Amino acid sequence: MKLVRFGPRGQERPGLVVGEHTIKDCSALVGDYDHAFFASGGLERLRAAAEIASLPDAPAGVRLGAPVARPRNVFAIGLNYADHAKETGKAIPAEPILFMKATTAVNGPYDPIRIPRGSRKTDWEVELGVVIGRDAHVLESPAAARGVVAGFVLANDVSEREFQIERGGQWSKGKSCPTFLPLGPWLATPDEIPNPHALGVWLDVNGHRRQTGCTATMIFDVWTIVHYVSQFIQLEAGDVIITGTPPGVGMARTPPEFLRPGDVVELGIDGLGRQRSVCEQA
Amino acid sequence: MKLVRFGPRGQERPGLVVGEHTIKDCSALVGDYDHAFFASGGLERLRAAAEIASLPDAPAGVRLGAPVARPRNVFAIGLNYADHAKETGKAIPAEPILFMKATTAVNGPYDPIRIPRGSRKTDWEVELGVVIGRDAHVLESPAAARGVVAGFVLANDVSEREFQIERGGQWSKGKSCPTFLPLGPWLATPDEIPNPHALGVWLDVNGHRRQTGCTATMIFDVWTIVHYVSQFIQLEAGDVIITGTPPGVGMARTPPEFLRPGDVVELGIDGLGRQRSVCEQA
Repeated sequence: MKLVRFGPRGQERPGLVVGEHTIKDCSALVGDYDHAFFASGGLERLRAAAEIASLPDAPAGVRLGAPVARPRNVFAIGLNYADHAKETGKAIPAEPILFMKATTAVNGPYDPIRIPRGSRKTDWEVELGVVIGRDAHVLESPAAARGVVAGFVLANDVSEREFQIERGGQWSKGKSCPTFLPLGPWLATPDEIPNPHALGVWLDVNGHRRQTGCTATMIFDVWTIVHYVSQFIQLEAGDVIITGTPPGVGMARTPPEFLRPGDVVELGIDGLGRQRSVCEQA
Repeated sequence: MKLVRFGPRGQERPGLVVGEHTIKDCSALVGDYDHAFFASGGLERLRAAAEIASLPDAPAGVRLGAPVARPRNVFAIGLNYADHAKETGKAIPAEPILFMKATTAVNGPYDPIRIPRGSRKTDWEVELGVVIGRDAHVLESPAAARGVVAGFVLANDVSEREFQIERGGQWSKGKSCPTFLPLGPWLATPDEIPNPHALGVWLDVNGHRRQTGCTATMIFDVWTIVHYVSQFIQLEAGDVIITGTPPGVGMARTPPEFLRPGDVVELGIDGLGRQRSVCEQA
């Protein structure tokens, strides 16, 4: 299944993509795609519903929001592609580098990215996102992590490098500005993505290819990451974990290149669709 | 006013402390102390309510939860007391060091602290917490921050130092284990705390004084911190910002000292009550 949420910001309704382009309005069947939905077997109810085909279509051209409701927590893994670690001049991490993004950063897949006031170094990071499907803490093994993943989502881990690195201490303040986490267009359930570690990943700025990669070159795979985070933190249904970016970020270019108002960022991952965001000054 | 939440974990009801020890059950007047409560003027409704005295008392000895519902985000400031920065061997930061704690870490003021499996360095940090009273982004000045603070709360920023510092990269994974953020017993509205920068702060382990400080020695004061965070991040009503710890943490002792199952941690801040947590093995 491919889950979407459509409608104005803050009033999104749950939908399912059927065929190539049709979105069915599932709001008569289920509530929002939130903690309660995932924790109560909402995905199984959707899958079993016989009446999807008879549901109304969403309006053509309707806005898409992030395909999950505001998560309770958003976790992120840094430097998880060997070639990206190299381009930033960092050693391969011995274990996953975990940080957090404020949940207020979540954005729709075609919404503008707002460049913060005073920003000079707003950068891009295409990433594979994992949506947690049930509450999980201290999972026994990476293999057990498969049972708690609701699906996968395309993410852009937008990052202000000066705020992140040059303004003291920890990364979160460069990772958490409003609109800094476009998610979607859809949440793909695991049956849609038989192997999350063989997905092509790309990102363009103004039509020029900037990132090209494959999830096969992740240092820590999806199951290892979910297991790892659960050793420290109580994961909850609906949480999002983004899993790191391949090479090609702006700060690693010579000379460095950052986003300016009017720039168009497009990105995609095999099976997870594509995003298109226009940058604007906040 | 002194706001509390009482009852079993996950089923807390809103209450007000009247006199020294009585808790009035306010659930007939207001919903939970959550985003909607603060954002919709709930504090003003409580203050204007004529019938508080006639409300039922909460049961004697009832459990207290954190005095605010699960925040949407929890922010924390590191190394914000000059003498604590010194004890950890760090320079005085040029601007606030911001990090995040997972919201699943929130705990009641008398609940056990669970020492994570595999932990050898679980440490304590008494802190002044600030509860945000209305959504705020890019505040114009520290003075403007006064208008968005709902009140103050005692906090323990429990920290696993090996997870935080020795396991790669960022602090969040040592700051976010379940039970690692005891809050309360009460949320004191600003009228109860005329000067948040003149409060005595202390923490005992097994009856031995470990931390002694005063909020007067903060490097960045409360209003500066709230203003600062809002420059990067959308703050929301009900969010919690903890503002750093004075000297006396376990890792700075010679030899270092950490919490073990059975240890009793007591802490307090003038006007904000005291906590008592027994440590247990997770």
